[in-house]
Amino acid sequence: MTAVPDPASSLPAADDFHVFDTTLRDGAQREGINLTVADKLAIARHLDDFGVGYIEGGWPGANPRDTEFFERARDEITFRHARLVAFGATRKAGVAAADDPQVAALLASGAPVITLVAKAHDRHVELALRTTLEENLAMVRDTVAHLRAQGRRVFVDCEHFFDGYRANPGYALDVVRAAHQAGAEVVVLCDTNGGMLPAQVGTVVAAVLAATGARLGIHAQDDTGCAVANTLAAVDAGATHVQCTANGYGERVGNANLFPVVAALELKYGREVLPAGALAEMTRISHAIAEVVNLTPSTHQPYVGVSAFAHKAGLHASAIKVDPDLYQHIDPERVGNTMRMLVSDMAGRASIELKGKELGYDLTGDRDLAGRVVERVKERELAGYTYEAADASFELLLRDEVTGAATRFFRVESWRTIVEQRPDGVQVNEATVKLWAKGERIIATGEGNGPVDALDRALRVGLERIYPQLARMELVDYKVRIVEGRHGTRSTTRVLVSTSDGGEYAGARSASVEGGGGRRAGEWSTVGVGGNVIAASWQALDDAYTYGLLRAGLEPPRD
Amino acid sequence: MTAVPDPASSLPAADDFHVFDTTLRDGAQREGINLTVADKLAIARHLDDFGVGYIEGGWPGANPRDTEFFERARDEITFRHARLVAFGATRKAGVAAADDPQVAALLASGAPVITLVAKAHDRHVELALRTTLEENLAMVRDTVAHLRAQGRRVFVDCEHFFDGYRANPGYALDVVRAAHQAGAEVVVLCDTNGGMLPAQVGTVVAAVLAATGARLGIHAQDDTGCAVANTLAAVDAGATHVQCTANGYGERVGNANLFPVVAALELKYGREVLPAGALAEMTRISHAIAEVVNLTPSTHQPYVGVSAFAHKAGLHASAIKVDPDLYQHIDPERVGNTMRMLVSDMAGRASIELKGKELGYDLTGDRDLAGRVVERVKERELAGYTYEAADASFELLLRDEVTGAATRFFRVESWRTIVEQRPDGVQVNEATVKLWAKGERIIATGEGNGPVDALDRALRVGLERIYPQLARMELVDYKVRIVEGRHGTRSTTRVLVSTSDGGEYAGARSASVEGGGGRRAGEWSTVGVGGNVIAASWQALDDAYTYGLLRAGLEPPRD
Repeated sequence: MTAVPDPASSLPAADDFHVFDTTLRDGAQREGINLTVADKLAIARHLDDFGVGYIEGGWPGANPRDTEFFERARDEITFRHARLVAFGATRKAGVAAADDPQVAALLASGAPVITLVAKAHDRHVELALRTTLEENLAMVRDTVAHLRAQGRRVFVDCEHFFDGYRANPGYALDVVRAAHQAGAEVVVLCDTNGGMLPAQVGTVVAAVLAATGARLGIHAQDDTGCAVANTLAAVDAGATHVQCTANGYGERVGNANLFPVVAALELKYGREVLPAGALAEMTRISHAIAEVVNLTPSTHQPYVGVSAFAHKAGLHASAIKVDPDLYQHIDPERVGNTMRMLVSDMAGRASIELKGKELGYDLTGDRDLAGRVVERVKERELAGYTYEAADASFELLLRDEVTGAATRFFRVESWRTIVEQRPDGVQVNEATVKLWAKGERIIATGEGNGPVDALDRALRVGLERIYPQLARMELVDYKVRIVEGRHGTRSTTRVLVSTSDGGEYAGARSASVEGGGGRRAGEWSTVGVGGNVIAASWQALDDAYTYGLLRAGLEPPRD
Repeated sequence: MTAVPDPASSLPAADDFHVFDTTLRDGAQREGINLTVADKLAIARHLDDFGVGYIEGGWPGANPRDTEFFERARDEITFRHARLVAFGATRKAGVAAADDPQVAALLASGAPVITLVAKAHDRHVELALRTTLEENLAMVRDTVAHLRAQGRRVFVDCEHFFDGYRANPGYALDVVRAAHQAGAEVVVLCDTNGGMLPAQVGTVVAAVLAATGARLGIHAQDDTGCAVANTLAAVDAGATHVQCTANGYGERVGNANLFPVVAALELKYGREVLPAGALAEMTRISHAIAEVVNLTPSTHQPYVGVSAFAHKAGLHASAIKVDPDLYQHIDPERVGNTMRMLVSDMAGRASIELKGKELGYDLTGDRDLAGRVVERVKERELAGYTYEAADASFELLLRDEVTGAATRFFRVESWRTIVEQRPDGVQVNEATVKLWAKGERIIATGEGNGPVDALDRALRVGLERIYPQLARMELVDYKVRIVEGRHGTRSTTRVLVSTSDGGEYAGARSASVEGGGGRRAGEWSTVGVGGNVIAASWQALDDAYTYGLLRAGLEPPRD
């Protein structure tokens, strides 16, 4: 057992309020999440950037991945704000804490802080743990005392606390007292099954605080849809430690979402719980973590969702022209998000004018033009298009109406893709395109990992000689959606493609386009719709490269 | 103006608490939702089935769709529980209510109840409405009185109430009093910008109730992630009318979600706000409405999400074997949902054993077998598979381990798909498969709307003579996902397919399989993974038909 340096011990961060993140431990229980060690390290870095005080990294000893994570985190990450926390259980019944290998693994992780989970519900002690109520209290006392004697800070998670308090309040309080008196710095009341409502949480937290004097924390699950409110209710009642997960990931419905909790504390309570400037990184960090865990960021997440400050109602659009603050509860820039006007068939001219302005087109002088754009958007949305997430395709539509001509750098004569699984097991993906550009007829063939990739390559092979700018462009995201519900493979398919030029031509288009929809700089999104995925992809690619060439400063030739 | 029959007036439903749904009006403001009249009628039927008291159908007169909806709803729907509500605005400044065509359209809709939106924030009156504070009060009084005189029930939505109360409480209260005194039955306090927290909502509602004596309602938006809690806080403070939307649809982040609000009222407060038995339909109705609006049901929605009662942690799985109620806040059957054990590489043997039991395989006697299944699941999930949403593919995997042989009714030699966009604009999708089944070599070609459809048809054309059971089966859902994040078309593609036999062979497999994962009876889901969408689809189809034949009672031939 080596001495444990606390990497954050010299930092000035106030410790009177703990923002404790458990994405890497409890968040990983979410259906669909499966984290590698590299994923966990990447998330830990994002969380430290965001400035949380504590990062619970996992249960060292319980599985090789978590053990490795603590080893590598120690070597590879210099935390600027956060302290690393190991999660584990109290000692086994009938075994000394010093002799319990599970407890030894927690110490061996080198984590300066250890969260111990303890049973606080009498029925769980008897049925799940299968020991006596008295032995459970001894397990809490002994394990906390042992870890404290080894120089670690200890937090105790009282599992099923609220249900336990309802069933047997005296015993639940005994567990809190046992942890507190043995030296636990914080006793965390957990709504493990997530069934509580804010008023209940507030009442119980206040009662436990009055009865024990322990420093209390809250760990809320979202099964009633109230995890954020439950966390805030606990803070209102005196808790000074909040356990949350990024994007609310967690088992079943999920955990209290870190982002709305800290946003409420900072923006609504005026309580500084993050380093200065961190909140403005929130949207970026939320999306970055979603990418690491490989889940699409929730578009409707409070504060950080792409839709969180998006307006489409005509009523709102007219008022927003007068004063944006009339229709938003905070300035979205405070959380790193942006207001967006949505283009949809519910939008009237006012929305289209605002959107045009965002893209650099002044439509206010021409009511007919804005009306025609509204009509075309309605028509295309009926056919399955969506412009809300495809700003570049919308701009092409708008540009066509403004200039009165289609924006076209090349014209397709025909294309064909072949995907073949050969008897020898080899798979071949091939595409051929026949195009016209600058008066030339071009035939090109590409191979790829799939039919869309092959089509993409054939298109570039054919066009790069004429438009060398295409060499800088790259497909960076690709989404497929069946848009007509439950009609199987015979439905309409919509494809959204994001394309990047690596920032090469960033100056050529307005900055607002790049920031729109939560995308990165140097990226743009296009949409294609068709009877199948390949036809839809072709359209999205066509728009993607047409827009990319415009963006690179080229003027389309007149047909 | 014809007399307006109130279709629900003879019903015994108590009117002392209003469950008021605004999915069709405010919910339709959600980014990505675009409702046709047929969609609106379908949703209205679902909401009436669910037993809400009031359905706000839209703004008649504001757009042709909403006007048509009220006409058709009157003719086509016999409401069993709900009263239809028209939404509109107070009269224009300087115009008599009787002369305002917008107000006339509300009456013409025939709706027995009308919700009027009124400005309650002084700044909005001046900047957005551009009239005087006094004229705004007159607009509220006159419009309410006019509609009451025409025999309608009137609710008044005080827009921006909470922000308005903060800015100018005296004026906000004047608006409530004006509405109340003119005959509005309920005055609804709206957190239009969604910036409130529950403690604030509770305080303000209590203060308004004390100051005015009006019957109060609450309309909460979810911008702080607290809309459900804000709604409940208002109820705690005396509100007896809650405005919600199905699945929380609504502008920006969304509205207070109807389902967790009514579940909390019924299950946590013990207050009967729905007809008897309705709550058990909640999961089905939530998913049905998601289908109508063409959004994937949120897997993590409280109470009704497919994940809402799903467990994957090994720790939980062992305890759940002892007593399921230890780890769930309510019995999921009360809301029409089911507990699921998830198969994932975080699952230990205990979870796999439980899942096996759910599928009808007893693995408890063979520790090695369960261990081998855990290993195979880990291996396959690393390659991009997911079994959480593909019970049928998991069962095939399990069956292969139990029987020691692959389940195979046919064997593929090779396949090929061609998608061609011809110069004349015609698109051709063609697939050829070469198969072996019962010792016969089969070559078959199919055409379809896309390459996967063509492949599906070629497969059936080839096999139906040998396995006529395939004729009953049909692809009913098809999902594509790029599983390796932002690597464009060169990533791994995962396809999930749902197949149905229309319930034909339902008896042949255990009922639990059919109910799993929130799917319909007679349906099963399979997964395929590959370097492109077609290869991945092929695998999912192979599993889908293999499982379908097993399900139809066939025994696979030994190779």
